[in-house]
Amino acid sequence: MPTIGIVGAGIAGLHLGLLLRQHDVPVTIYTDKTAEQLASGRLLNSVAHHAPTIKRERALGVHFWPVEEYGYSCHHHYVGGPQPLSFRGNFTHWSSALDYRLYLPKLMEAFEERGGRLQIRTLGADDIEPLAERHDLLVVAAGRGAFASLFPRRPEASPYDRPQRALAVGLFDGITESSPKGVTISASPGHGELLEIPMYGPQGFTTALLFENVPGGDLEVLAKTRYEDDPRGFERLVLQKLEQHHPQTFARVDPARFALTGPLDILQGAITPTVREDFARLPNGKFALAVGDVHTVVDPVIGQGANSASHSAWVAGEEIVSDYGLDELFCRRVAARRAEVVLGAANWTNLMLAPPPEHLLQLFGAMARDQAVADEFTDNFDYPDRQWRILATPERTAGFLARRAKTTV
Amino acid sequence: MPTIGIVGAGIAGLHLGLLLRQHDVPVTIYTDKTAEQLASGRLLNSVAHHAPTIKRERALGVHFWPVEEYGYSCHHHYVGGPQPLSFRGNFTHWSSALDYRLYLPKLMEAFEERGGRLQIRTLGADDIEPLAERHDLLVVAAGRGAFASLFPRRPEASPYDRPQRALAVGLFDGITESSPKGVTISASPGHGELLEIPMYGPQGFTTALLFENVPGGDLEVLAKTRYEDDPRGFERLVLQKLEQHHPQTFARVDPARFALTGPLDILQGAITPTVREDFARLPNGKFALAVGDVHTVVDPVIGQGANSASHSAWVAGEEIVSDYGLDELFCRRVAARRAEVVLGAANWTNLMLAPPPEHLLQLFGAMARDQAVADEFTDNFDYPDRQWRILATPERTAGFLARRAKTTV
Repeated sequence: MPTIGIVGAGIAGLHLGLLLRQHDVPVTIYTDKTAEQLASGRLLNSVAHHAPTIKRERALGVHFWPVEEYGYSCHHHYVGGPQPLSFRGNFTHWSSALDYRLYLPKLMEAFEERGGRLQIRTLGADDIEPLAERHDLLVVAAGRGAFASLFPRRPEASPYDRPQRALAVGLFDGITESSPKGVTISASPGHGELLEIPMYGPQGFTTALLFENVPGGDLEVLAKTRYEDDPRGFERLVLQKLEQHHPQTFARVDPARFALTGPLDILQGAITPTVREDFARLPNGKFALAVGDVHTVVDPVIGQGANSASHSAWVAGEEIVSDYGLDELFCRRVAARRAEVVLGAANWTNLMLAPPPEHLLQLFGAMARDQAVADEFTDNFDYPDRQWRILATPERTAGFLARRAKTTV
Repeated sequence: MPTIGIVGAGIAGLHLGLLLRQHDVPVTIYTDKTAEQLASGRLLNSVAHHAPTIKRERALGVHFWPVEEYGYSCHHHYVGGPQPLSFRGNFTHWSSALDYRLYLPKLMEAFEERGGRLQIRTLGADDIEPLAERHDLLVVAAGRGAFASLFPRRPEASPYDRPQRALAVGLFDGITESSPKGVTISASPGHGELLEIPMYGPQGFTTALLFENVPGGDLEVLAKTRYEDDPRGFERLVLQKLEQHHPQTFARVDPARFALTGPLDILQGAITPTVREDFARLPNGKFALAVGDVHTVVDPVIGQGANSASHSAWVAGEEIVSDYGLDELFCRRVAARRAEVVLGAANWTNLMLAPPPEHLLQLFGAMARDQAVADEFTDNFDYPDRQWRILATPERTAGFLARRAKTTV
């Protein structure tokens, strides 16, 4: 039985580790933070899990927060401008958003209970050779750190060389949830997007506001202002920007109750969307496979990162337990099997970061007029490969809309 | 509704054309021979259809010769040498071998009955531009001709630059069929292989003897001797070589009845196994997609060509009817979806043409000892991707055999 080393205990590393343990494969996850450190630390992200990810959680026996109770059923879209658009898209299967300070520690616990080894240590470049000796395959599932540099950037799949949004996400009290319960995706043309997400975490149900701010725009200040310097001033700034740019969410705010849920419940930063090589040959001839952020890191604007990482981990795990080697052919097969979903998520996300092309606006117009189109676009958050087939070119969007128009006649 | 032009009326062109007609897609097949010319002409090949191909025939409503009646259930293996090996591998689902002088005309008829257009003409390079104007996509499904040159050879996937076998195939009377009815695969080390195939054609049930002769070996003469010059002498030569090199088949020959079934029932030649590019951009910006022999032409030694071509056509057809464009992304998606099966068939075939590596001999040894291994190898004629995962490296074959040994303990 081969032994697998996984670097990183995010969703990719843990889903892979849990899958391998279901098949009794010896597996060690290396990570630099204990479950307790994660649980008591700063907000990690504001990620949604879509139906395929939830299906994998169920298969792994780690769907601890039933989506029917903790999840949501739709996207509320608001597109500002002189003639604002407002419409809703419904999921066939619900999604959910859990605070990773709750989620990851619970999965780490399950992984260890099921015989997985968890080693808490910070890895450096010196660790590559000894780990390559110890394991038959290294899976790198950490977006940062010494191991990430094994995988060169793929320029042909990485159109941006800098962040396209300045990010600020915080958990807030004082916002009445949308009805039906859903994520609100609000666009302020030229300035960026807001994702308002019904989130469950250590404080119970709260609202995550993820501000995706165009650099140089009126909202960038949200990513640059330190909460710690003046908490009430920061909250006033958020309220003021909400009112001006994202009125559909602002309408549900009770200013008297509006506040960050805690000083650690805010995260600011930026991501350069990057696709890297799928695998690397190690000095001893064994292989390292990239999954998750180290392979494709996406801006969170359409919530694809965690789902893409889980998909990638799942494909890798299925092939580890069924294939007859952990060699270059194995790595190429994993790369081929996951490519359409993972690159679909990256390409679609990158399109959403660009100034909106005409065919995207036409699709949004069609969504506002035709509930079936809005629902299909929403469902395709579960299937970024399908979304990209629709959005890759203006001709494809036109072909999609023509076919849907024919269906409804 | 886009219109599709298909160049070539072999199995790939016809399966694709029939699939498109099931979805009411306008489609024209261009071919240089009428059904009547094919029916009255020389033997075209001695190809077997495996279960996935038969499943596609059923789905297309063109499984006119029920496999239960016309097919066979197993492979009889004979490996000559100082210690000959003889063993059988059983298919889970039967295969069958039909004379294409029967098969192709019947499918051409079905294609036209279902609204497909069939144009009989020889195409030259001058036809590329007008056809590209007339259709939204050109599918090139003819291994030879002006359109084949659109697709450059892929050297990294084409290890040979010349034929590895001199081929001679004929239909014969006077051979009692094997029991259970099956294909006999007989190897004469250093000289080549014989495939003895229970074939159904215009003469009813006959036996195809496909001699795969190593250039420079004792059997090459079979591919170089003209039947027409001395029919009885040719048949005596075949008998003599059978006795010397392929005794398991010779044992079932009645020399008094042994004869070619007709002067056109023999075909001699050679194939340079070649993998070519998946698609090409045409001068007007539209695309041409390669399927079948023009994409991957394989030596017939393990009977993969027609099945690979049908698979490739099927993937192309499914994507034509479901995708929103016939653009480069479409072509890349077809290429990615079919790659593992189609390249698996090519890579496995190329391995079988080489001097047998040690791990292949070990697998054959295991097949002789373990019926389950022999059956799995046989079933994998249906799934060349799976076979290649076992055979790609010595370590993989060892991994496969270790896992199977564990299963049987």
